[in-house]
Amino acid sequence: MVFGGTLFIGTVALWASKAVAVDNGLAVTPQMGWDNWNAFGCDVSETLLTQTAQLIVDYGLKDLGYHYVILDDCWSTGRNASNNNSLIADSTKFPRGMAAVADDIHALGLGFGMYSDAGKYTCGGYAGSLGYETVDANTFASWGVDYLKYDNCYNMGQAGNQMISSGRYEVMGNALNATGRPILYSLCNWGEDYPWNWGSTIANSWRISGDIFDSWDMADARCPCDGDDAWNCGLPGFHCSVTNIMNKASFIVSKAQPGAWNDLDMLEVGNGAMTDAEYVAHFSMWAAVKSPLIMGNDIRTIPPADLAILSNPAVIAVSQDPSGSSAARRWIYATNDTDINGRATIQMWSGNLKSTTGGDQSDMVVLLINGNKNTIVLNATLADIFVDNGPLGTAPQVKLSWEVRDLWANRMSDDEAKAIIDASSAVGNATTGYNATTIGAGRYNATKTSYADGLAANSSLLLGKVSTTVQPSGTITATVDPHGAAMFRLRAMPTGSLKRDEL
Amino acid sequence: MVFGGTLFIGTVALWASKAVAVDNGLAVTPQMGWDNWNAFGCDVSETLLTQTAQLIVDYGLKDLGYHYVILDDCWSTGRNASNNNSLIADSTKFPRGMAAVADDIHALGLGFGMYSDAGKYTCGGYAGSLGYETVDANTFASWGVDYLKYDNCYNMGQAGNQMISSGRYEVMGNALNATGRPILYSLCNWGEDYPWNWGSTIANSWRISGDIFDSWDMADARCPCDGDDAWNCGLPGFHCSVTNIMNKASFIVSKAQPGAWNDLDMLEVGNGAMTDAEYVAHFSMWAAVKSPLIMGNDIRTIPPADLAILSNPAVIAVSQDPSGSSAARRWIYATNDTDINGRATIQMWSGNLKSTTGGDQSDMVVLLINGNKNTIVLNATLADIFVDNGPLGTAPQVKLSWEVRDLWANRMSDDEAKAIIDASSAVGNATTGYNATTIGAGRYNATKTSYADGLAANSSLLLGKVSTTVQPSGTITATVDPHGAAMFRLRAMPTGSLKRDEL
Amino acid sequence: MVFGGTLFIGTVALWASKAVAVDNGLAVTPQMGWDNWNAFGCDVSETLLTQTAQLIVDYGLKDLGYHYVILDDCWSTGRNASNNNSLIADSTKFPRGMAAVADDIHALGLGFGMYSDAGKYTCGGYAGSLGYETVDANTFASWGVDYLKYDNCYNMGQAGNQMISSGRYEVMGNALNATGRPILYSLCNWGEDYPWNWGSTIANSWRISGDIFDSWDMADARCPCDGDDAWNCGLPGFHCSVTNIMNKASFIVSKAQPGAWNDLDMLEVGNGAMTDAEYVAHFSMWAAVKSPLIMGNDIRTIPPADLAILSNPAVIAVSQDPSGSSAARRWIYATNDTDINGRATIQMWSGNLKSTTGGDQSDMVVLLINGNKNTIVLNATLADIFVDNGPLGTAPQVKLSWEVRDLWANRMSDDEAKAIIDASSAVGNATTGYNATTIGAGRYNATKTSYADGLAANSSLLLGKVSTTVQPSGTITATVDPHGAAMFRLRAMPTGSLKRDEL
Amino acid sequence: MVFGGTLFIGTVALWASKAVAVDNGLAVTPQMGWDNWNAFGCDVSETLLTQTAQLIVDYGLKDLGYHYVILDDCWSTGRNASNNNSLIADSTKFPRGMAAVADDIHALGLGFGMYSDAGKYTCGGYAGSLGYETVDANTFASWGVDYLKYDNCYNMGQAGNQMISSGRYEVMGNALNATGRPILYSLCNWGEDYPWNWGSTIANSWRISGDIFDSWDMADARCPCDGDDAWNCGLPGFHCSVTNIMNKASFIVSKAQPGAWNDLDMLEVGNGAMTDAEYVAHFSMWAAVKSPLIMGNDIRTIPPADLAILSNPAVIAVSQDPSGSSAARRWIYATNDTDINGRATIQMWSGNLKSTTGGDQSDMVVLLINGNKNTIVLNATLADIFVDNGPLGTAPQVKLSWEVRDLWANRMSDDEAKAIIDASSAVGNATTGYNATTIGAGRYNATKTSYADGLAANSSLLLGKVSTTVQPSGTITATVDPHGAAMFRLRAMPTGSLKRDEL
Repeated sequence: MVFGGTLFIGTVALWASKAVAVDNGLAVTPQMGWDNWNAFGCDVSETLLTQTAQLIVDYGLKDLGYHYVILDDCWSTGRNASNNNSLIADSTKFPRGMAAVADDIHALGLGFGMYSDAGKYTCGGYAGSLGYETVDANTFASWGVDYLKYDNCYNMGQAGNQMISSGRYEVMGNALNATGRPILYSLCNWGEDYPWNWGSTIANSWRISGDIFDSWDMADARCPCDGDDAWNCGLPGFHCSVTNIMNKASFIVSKAQPGAWNDLDMLEVGNGAMTDAEYVAHFSMWAAVKSPLIMGNDIRTIPPADLAILSNPAVIAVSQDPSGSSAARRWIYATNDTDINGRATIQMWSGNLKSTTGGDQSDMVVLLINGNKNTIVLNATLADIFVDNGPLGTAPQVKLSWEVRDLWANRMSDDEAKAIIDASSAVGNATTGYNATTIGAGRYNATKTSYADGLAANSSLLLGKVSTTVQPSGTITATVDPHGAAMFRLRAMPTGSLKRDEL
Repeated sequence: MVFGGTLFIGTVALWASKAVAVDNGLAVTPQMGWDNWNAFGCDVSETLLTQTAQLIVDYGLKDLGYHYVILDDCWSTGRNASNNNSLIADSTKFPRGMAAVADDIHALGLGFGMYSDAGKYTCGGYAGSLGYETVDANTFASWGVDYLKYDNCYNMGQAGNQMISSGRYEVMGNALNATGRPILYSLCNWGEDYPWNWGSTIANSWRISGDIFDSWDMADARCPCDGDDAWNCGLPGFHCSVTNIMNKASFIVSKAQPGAWNDLDMLEVGNGAMTDAEYVAHFSMWAAVKSPLIMGNDIRTIPPADLAILSNPAVIAVSQDPSGSSAARRWIYATNDTDINGRATIQMWSGNLKSTTGGDQSDMVVLLINGNKNTIVLNATLADIFVDNGPLGTAPQVKLSWEVRDLWANRMSDDEAKAIIDASSAVGNATTGYNATTIGAGRYNATKTSYADGLAANSSLLLGKVSTTVQPSGTITATVDPHGAAMFRLRAMPTGSLKRDEL
Repeated sequence: MVFGGTLFIGTVALWASKAVAVDNGLAVTPQMGWDNWNAFGCDVSETLLTQTAQLIVDYGLKDLGYHYVILDDCWSTGRNASNNNSLIADSTKFPRGMAAVADDIHALGLGFGMYSDAGKYTCGGYAGSLGYETVDANTFASWGVDYLKYDNCYNMGQAGNQMISSGRYEVMGNALNATGRPILYSLCNWGEDYPWNWGSTIANSWRISGDIFDSWDMADARCPCDGDDAWNCGLPGFHCSVTNIMNKASFIVSKAQPGAWNDLDMLEVGNGAMTDAEYVAHFSMWAAVKSPLIMGNDIRTIPPADLAILSNPAVIAVSQDPSGSSAARRWIYATNDTDINGRATIQMWSGNLKSTTGGDQSDMVVLLINGNKNTIVLNATLADIFVDNGPLGTAPQVKLSWEVRDLWANRMSDDEAKAIIDASSAVGNATTGYNATTIGAGRYNATKTSYADGLAANSSLLLGKVSTTVQPSGTITATVDPHGAAMFRLRAMPTGSLKRDEL
Repeated sequence: MVFGGTLFIGTVALWASKAVAVDNGLAVTPQMGWDNWNAFGCDVSETLLTQTAQLIVDYGLKDLGYHYVILDDCWSTGRNASNNNSLIADSTKFPRGMAAVADDIHALGLGFGMYSDAGKYTCGGYAGSLGYETVDANTFASWGVDYLKYDNCYNMGQAGNQMISSGRYEVMGNALNATGRPILYSLCNWGEDYPWNWGSTIANSWRISGDIFDSWDMADARCPCDGDDAWNCGLPGFHCSVTNIMNKASFIVSKAQPGAWNDLDMLEVGNGAMTDAEYVAHFSMWAAVKSPLIMGNDIRTIPPADLAILSNPAVIAVSQDPSGSSAARRWIYATNDTDINGRATIQMWSGNLKSTTGGDQSDMVVLLINGNKNTIVLNATLADIFVDNGPLGTAPQVKLSWEVRDLWANRMSDDEAKAIIDASSAVGNATTGYNATTIGAGRYNATKTSYADGLAANSSLLLGKVSTTVQPSGTITATVDPHGAAMFRLRAMPTGSLKRDEL
């Protein structure tokens, strides 16, 4: 048996998931944060990190749950032979050392992430941790690191089947655990050797693809593996489009669970090469499939529209839902309305969320994705949305009425986003920021009220805007922008005198 | 050479299979029984098992051969460090302990099956047996367990080639054998790493696919691998439709043999999302390819029509045929009459059965399957049915006349099935049931007369209803419901003065 | 670099192959003989072997090169625990024991082959040699065995990559070599784990596919892997048609070399389910690609036409050509003239043979294969035939004239074949047979004059019948039967005053 | 993360590559030289090598960078059991021994390469180095060898996953390093087991395909693996066309880096079976993707046109560009204008080159390839050329104007090439050659001025001929011969007062 679908008899979930992920208590919901790579590559420095951390606070992103500030590759100058071969931080980029950076980030109430590689070199050609796992884990712990992104370059041929790859990654997992410091362990092995099979018992997340590119659906020979067997990719590559990664995720969504997530790679929102609709769809998708939400843009120059996307609490609440269950693709169709890249598909995804109605019916997230060149009206039937509970409309949920809430309707306006940005005066001035203005006063603050609690309390900020009601056996309809998505939360309507036997 | 086709010179089979399967004497014909997973998932309890066991007796299912009552995942609360790390049964779900459950089931003349996993955790997140094989096998034996379903979740990277996977599964096989108690060993590794190559020497059956779903042919990204190379699936997944699994079986049917069977997963008959025709085809198929026949529905609420399907002795006699030889797919064609899932194929399968005519000609099972949207008339030529004995009509059997017996014509009526259900009064009352009424008086009772003996005695209950005779080089015709199957037994007509040389 | 193509500058071959195959001195040309499996399966006996051996002599097949009489599976009754666990021959089937059978076969001037399996059981379920390689090799040697066919069933998971499979097969190879008796070692691992990469250093031949079936092109789900990646087949299966195996061979023809051959499986000629044209094509093909030529029919009842096919010295001379170089597929095209199995392709193969003209130009074998439903005229251009020496007509050979010899034109008549059969009176009467008549007086006798010597001497029996001459840049044309083949030997015409520079 | 794409913010490259390749300091740019295999196969001798070496000097090829003279297979006569089992050079072919040959080659200022095989035998059947790595490395070093091509035949099953193959090849790498002599290490494992993943840490280059054939696009069953998953080829084979190898390269171009290169196999330029346009495209492509440029023709009979191709300094300057970054395929389209092999595609590749304009904008190489039957006008938009810097025209480079330089416009005339050949009188006369004439006086001499220095100095010989200027968002147009290529260097035009914000 494969555990991944939820079995229902009538409306009662028959089982509750046990904690089977790596036992460090972290990433109970998908981790959130920021990583410098997508926007800055190797151009890293203390200043970049501390400025960004401050802005994450100032712009209210911290309050929305973005917690980890992650320093990616290119931070070291090698190993110190006279000090146990420990890694040396680049003193030009980080003149005060890493522990000081960590302290500053911790002082802001954020977590500090770092990067290494399960190989001889990092992808950027710096010293890798293969063979140095214990000393490096201890170094990271001593610096106050809370998160390790662990890459896959130059792995000396230690790949090719699950046993070899999992064994290599397990060494660092054990070393991190042995430090005694809880360090979120993020595997970056690009989906090689089926990490969804073995990642959950040694780590908190695992990449499922090559590196993301700031493109909706451009094909690139350097990111092969598309189509029906895309899950089996011996050449993960890079320059993978959003839709390429979404397709790879579609096969393995059930592998996500509390403490152990499919990682679709860092967000491109704000990096400038996709349209607003594309970024909305990208962010919606990553939230729905429970990917880590790691911002990958330059926060210091973030356009208001992108801040608005990243700051949508109703979408983030899907990501951080206590059920920890990924949405799944219910259908995908090719169409003839091909875009500039010669592609055209429409898709519908749905997935369970924890009930916010007090009844025994889970809420449901629904995504309608338009990959066509032109705007289109898309439909999602209750039969398709609830197909996991019974195919062809046999699910009992199809016989209920559902409140349909648009999760993007309450998106922050560009004006408001701009005001927040403007209100956060000088970078590094912790006394300013949205919290110091009236601008952000009504925004959701997950550091005070967790998403779980907010959902339990029916926080209106998290539930989206009621757009309609769908009747039993009915259909949800949405007009969707090209390369955009509509995203809804469905909540079961009270059934009044409806008896169990009638379902 | 691959042993799988039967070689005939004229009409004489040239070889007899030797016993090469795991040497525990079990599953000489495909195992039959019931498992709670498909209908109940983790919602297990002593009551569920004992009630179901009683109904299996009361409804005559035991007499038809359904022997094992199998408790699936979610029954433990961990390991007892002070007792050799043995597994602890959940005292809430099983207040009297497992041995008591086993005793009750044994008292009914049934066998008791349990579940564990060749990994760190079970799929449901409970304690797995990897590294604890000996202690767990001993525990199972001490409880009186007769059957172990052994799953594949959280296997710690111990997968990826045949040597790794077979080695992992062999440990438990050896541990079970070492207990001295005959315990049927059922591998649940979803077809990973070609278990049909190595399963037979360590176990009695092996799953060949991801988990079944209660659907005829709905595609689901979470069960990839369809088409011509479906046998090579690194992502077995779940939500696999009946036709998806049938397709996977088509490539490896020859791997089935007495004591060692391809397992197409538990039956969905009675779970409500397929049509009657679909359930008939599903059950027919599982019988013809010698899959274990493990009911997966809620027996306590079984609809009469589904009881009728599961109770067809003429079809079960195909499953339990002494020859232990699977039917094979002779042809499959795509058509244009696509159903709601966009699919349309027609198929014909046939296979050898032990002769019931006293001659030297094997009986033959023939399945015509209609995957179209609409009812269709399907044809099976003798040339195609007997192609294994010579292609293009060269088989000597094509020159004979055959009695054609419809194996579904004598299906129990819904009224009779309802009467049986009604006659079985209170659950748990062993003195009632179909045997206490006149309803079931004429039904086949395999606990008294084995299928082998019944066939040898030409029991009319097992041979189906004569529908027609097909002449040499002739064709069998059947009108088949959408997503349904026609199933026939062919018996060689006496050849009278026909001499060998004339064949 | 891959060694497989012959490099020419002008007309001079630039390298000569070195002996790299397993070092037992056997199978310098592809082995020839007979094996009981295809026709008899497990129905084996001393009588079958000795009668067949006698007829191989009587019908002149021995003189044509058929040397090994191979007993396949099902000959043992287990191991003798009190005699070093050595295998016990079935005393019912072989009442005088194996050594006596070997003696009889040796007395006829033939070699004796036996069968075992690199697994726990043979495919038929008898004791396998895995773990008993040394004792079994010694037993075989002690019995006078000259040939071992070594199968792949029940290999206990010892498969999945080249290292695992080659290691398993190497054990027996070493054991055979250690006996001191030259025993031809024939791997029967069905192409699993790329035996063409490692087979040549441990054995004399290796199977490249699942088991053959007596069919030209019937598809069967149990023999998957067709098309462009057919060389990569994790499920070899059985019931593989002639064209399925030819396709698999097309990718790896260059792996054949003296002492180490691709084995396309035993011949079906004479088993009755293919047409005469199909058997001609099948035999032509196996000869051209240097497969072992192991007859698989019942010699005792051989139809004259099939004896004529198997007895064509001009075709066998291609197989046994001293160059040991396989023909390669030059082109294959799909057509619309589909046959009863829905297939239609035409193909052309060609390959180098040792020069019989005394010049420095190799002879060439050309095969035109018609897979259509109807007779067709096929063409082969010199440009395509010699493409290995330069694409698009740039090969110097294209500028020569060639004598075209039809290798089937001198096929023995059915009347002559029948006369040979009739002349061989009682089975077992060694004083009769074709050599005792005038019928076979003029036939080729390779036991007196090797094919190498015969070719060197321009034996007219080996060179086929001159059918035409093809001019420079010309085309060979042949009318080819449905599912048939035309087969030619090309010999360079004297170039007279043609100078090297003009080529 | 995968390191391969260059990240830019505006116009500033954000990272600089570190030296991660095998640490021998060699092949900082792709190695150049000559190898005898493609033209001569096993027909090797001292004379061939020394004559060729002399002509490489005489024809100015040495001055253009062709440095290594590589002796391929078939040079030994086995091992000397009385001398540490060291390899013995064939005294017929090399009467003075290898050290003398090396001395002669060194005396000409060239490097000497040799060949062995990571198996029991070389592909030609000579003694392989598997198990003799240390003794052979020492022998090579003692002879003065500067380069080892290390093949993959007869590897005794030591293949099948990355760990096995990399481990096997690493042994020789370590042995070479241990000699203390810098020896360029060239893996010839045909792309098996993903050498691009592990090759860079043990060697300087790795083959990515089966052996090349002197054909543009002829399909051959013996070189399978074309299309979208061509990177995953378990049967590399041989007779791979130029376009087949280009396709394989397209997926893995990012793996090339200083010291570690994808090897597309030796050049066919000059071997006579391709058109001039095809050789131009072939050479252009190999340069653009940073394959080693190893001539594979007979230099002694080189046609003037081919000398002109091999002698184009503007194209070689792309190969030897200090950035060490491969071009990538930006698009490929199928067309209907199929050629004689039934193929028709057009492609555009582009890649970064080190800036020669003094600004911060990289130069760019652009290749337009016409695989059609007929001449065609092809277009490359700046948006596509710079897609790595931002898709759909979002790259800042698209907003600049670019000077377009045709890299083939200054190709040496056939008359000039003939004059050079004629000027080089007797083979072996080192005092003649192009340097002794006025013919080659103006040619580029990389032994005096490295390509890096020449580019830095804006040598007009390296930059091609200005053909046009392309305006912002503009398009480059070229008329391209059938199976030919247009190749351009783009250089950023001064932006004058253009401010950063305007980009």
